[in-house]
Amino acid sequence: MSTQTPFFPVAASHHALEEGTELAPRFDANGLITCIAVDAATNDVLMLAHMNAEALALTMQTGEAHYYSRSRKALWKKGETSGHTQKVSEIRIDCDQDAVLIKVTMGGTGAACHTGRRSCFYRTIPIGAAPSADTALGFTGDAPRFDPKAVYGGHDH
Amino acid sequence: MSTQTPFFPVAASHHALEEGTELAPRFDANGLITCIAVDAATNDVLMLAHMNAEALALTMQTGEAHYYSRSRKALWKKGETSGHTQKVSEIRIDCDQDAVLIKVTMGGTGAACHTGRRSCFYRTIPIGAAPSADTALGFTGDAPRFDPKAVYGGHDH
Repeated sequence: MSTQTPFFPVAASHHALEEGTELAPRFDANGLITCIAVDAATNDVLMLAHMNAEALALTMQTGEAHYYSRSRKALWKKGETSGHTQKVSEIRIDCDQDAVLIKVTMGGTGAACHTGRRSCFYRTIPIGAAPSADTALGFTGDAPRFDPKAVYGGHDH
Repeated sequence: MSTQTPFFPVAASHHALEEGTELAPRFDANGLITCIAVDAATNDVLMLAHMNAEALALTMQTGEAHYYSRSRKALWKKGETSGHTQKVSEIRIDCDQDAVLIKVTMGGTGAACHTGRRSCFYRTIPIGAAPSADTALGFTGDAPRFDPKAVYGGHDH
């Protein structure tokens, strides 16, 4: 599925950008906007990724999350390879329209992360000391739900 | 408060980066990492901002959110001007260590956004049609809790 060149105007003013009802996303120099995906039921952050204009337009149009892969330099429908689709129940945009938040219901095993875990944020950074050679990440207990090698083979996710 | 040059190693391998306990954040070409701040009690996404190495180190050390302002090109302790501090109860890092998630308790009025609202994500994008001249953002009802002009004056936040 593809769209025409998406209709995304530039905001007429700073006030319109922040207080208006016109969708005027500010894509960066690479044509991308940051997207946070959260679980629609629990609000847990699942992943952070990027969308280009086409990915944002397709997400709006289809209600299925689409992203732009910076490593593969390609539009990417989430779950295309792995079955871990994201049905989008809400899309939000932030004050200065350079970040998007989507609330999703995961398909497949419920794993949003290419490592097989539900969330990409499965490790904690300790608080209370400056970073040092002693700093050790902790694991949250979000265990892999599938074997990434079996799903993705040798390919980048 | 300032730190020595923060101790942030480079991961020895892709596997160490994603499955290890070594904190090896991948700052981008501008020396920044993306940070999502969520409300510690509700999980609601409050804002998205950036940290440089010093901001991340200070956040770890003090348990108070520090960011790097791209517009002001300066380290920024959240709430320095407005009183809307963020006490950090948890820090997480994502699979490929290029994004951080912090769980925070807001100070002041509870507004994380410079517009005076609790969350920067106070507008919704409609789902079900491609973007067009008819696309209209909705407001979530997250009303401003303070007058930004009174708090920030003519300055950038």
